[in-house]
Amino acid sequence: MAALKPTNYHGDVVWLGRVMHEGVLPSEASEALEFTFDGPEGEVHGGRTRPACARVLDQHPRGTEIANVRQLTILSAEELAETAFAMGVPEILPEWLGATIVLRGMPDLTHLPPSSRLQAESGLTFVVDMENRPCVLPGRVIEEHFPEKGARFKPAASGRRGVTAWVERPGRLVVGDSLRLHIPDQRAWELMAEAR
Amino acid sequence: MAALKPTNYHGDVVWLGRVMHEGVLPSEASEALEFTFDGPEGEVHGGRTRPACARVLDQHPRGTEIANVRQLTILSAEELAETAFAMGVPEILPEWLGATIVLRGMPDLTHLPPSSRLQAESGLTFVVDMENRPCVLPGRVIEEHFPEKGARFKPAASGRRGVTAWVERPGRLVVGDSLRLHIPDQRAWELMAEAR
Repeated sequence: MAALKPTNYHGDVVWLGRVMHEGVLPSEASEALEFTFDGPEGEVHGGRTRPACARVLDQHPRGTEIANVRQLTILSAEELAETAFAMGVPEILPEWLGATIVLRGMPDLTHLPPSSRLQAESGLTFVVDMENRPCVLPGRVIEEHFPEKGARFKPAASGRRGVTAWVERPGRLVVGDSLRLHIPDQRAWELMAEAR
Repeated sequence: MAALKPTNYHGDVVWLGRVMHEGVLPSEASEALEFTFDGPEGEVHGGRTRPACARVLDQHPRGTEIANVRQLTILSAEELAETAFAMGVPEILPEWLGATIVLRGMPDLTHLPPSSRLQAESGLTFVVDMENRPCVLPGRVIEEHFPEKGARFKPAASGRRGVTAWVERPGRLVVGDSLRLHIPDQRAWELMAEAR
């Protein structure tokens, strides 16, 4: 009867951090984070609800109070490396992107099935809302470190910008923990190809 | 930059109702419902959080407080008719299934993409968590109306039991309103076939 199926895919937590002030990057790295139903404690993007932003203008007027499905962003260490390679820079630090969690070992992380869950051994659980899309903001931070390269970020990060997520079950996460993937065990919607 | 894409697929609201007491079916039909961030007002499955149930035993011990992504269930009028046909009964009323909303005209509703949104013209928005799976409970109600047929419900409703959903943006819904489908505009996870 369960529609949510555990898989054998895991990702190891290699980095944690928080954005402390709205629009201010880099974020601050941390060895451990507490997650409540409001998101990562101290993170500026926390809260059960949030004012609608430019990303959802097709659905909501800016500022409308909506449920917050962007409490945190989860990135792939491998995809970050690919983005750096595509930009022609030696590395991109997660704090430049305002990341919350960086995982190593989770394949094709940016395209994880929407409504997937990522669960730590402690029981802490995140709901994956969907793919995150790159904006220009991290490019400005990268520009400070690698002049003339910042504008390459948005195209280079396409399909590699990780996912946005929110807290389904609270708990503490520490660098070195592992997150297990659970997926909606259902076939594709029959009109998916047509609707996209 | 938006990952959530409006489509031209709509469903017309042909029925609304609420379960008033835990485990008690049939539910009560209604011409209109108010939805807050807690779900449909007066619905026993409401709340921002809920105690984990048998459906998520692979993720959470029973009774664990988790976010409530099962505030409401949305069914397809066409799929309900197909289930009735498969059971060999003339009709199945939505109240026998504890439905919240029945839509007409939304194709393949039970397999809508997880993390899709359904939005009314008023702005009221639901997040589709994923497919709902049939349990035996509605079969007992059907049994009272069509003796010897109730046990057929669970297999007959497989793949036609609608979706579970929760409120992203509050508002009022009235029979006759229309809900528009918005989908995550991203390709399939590359390991989906293998993980299922």
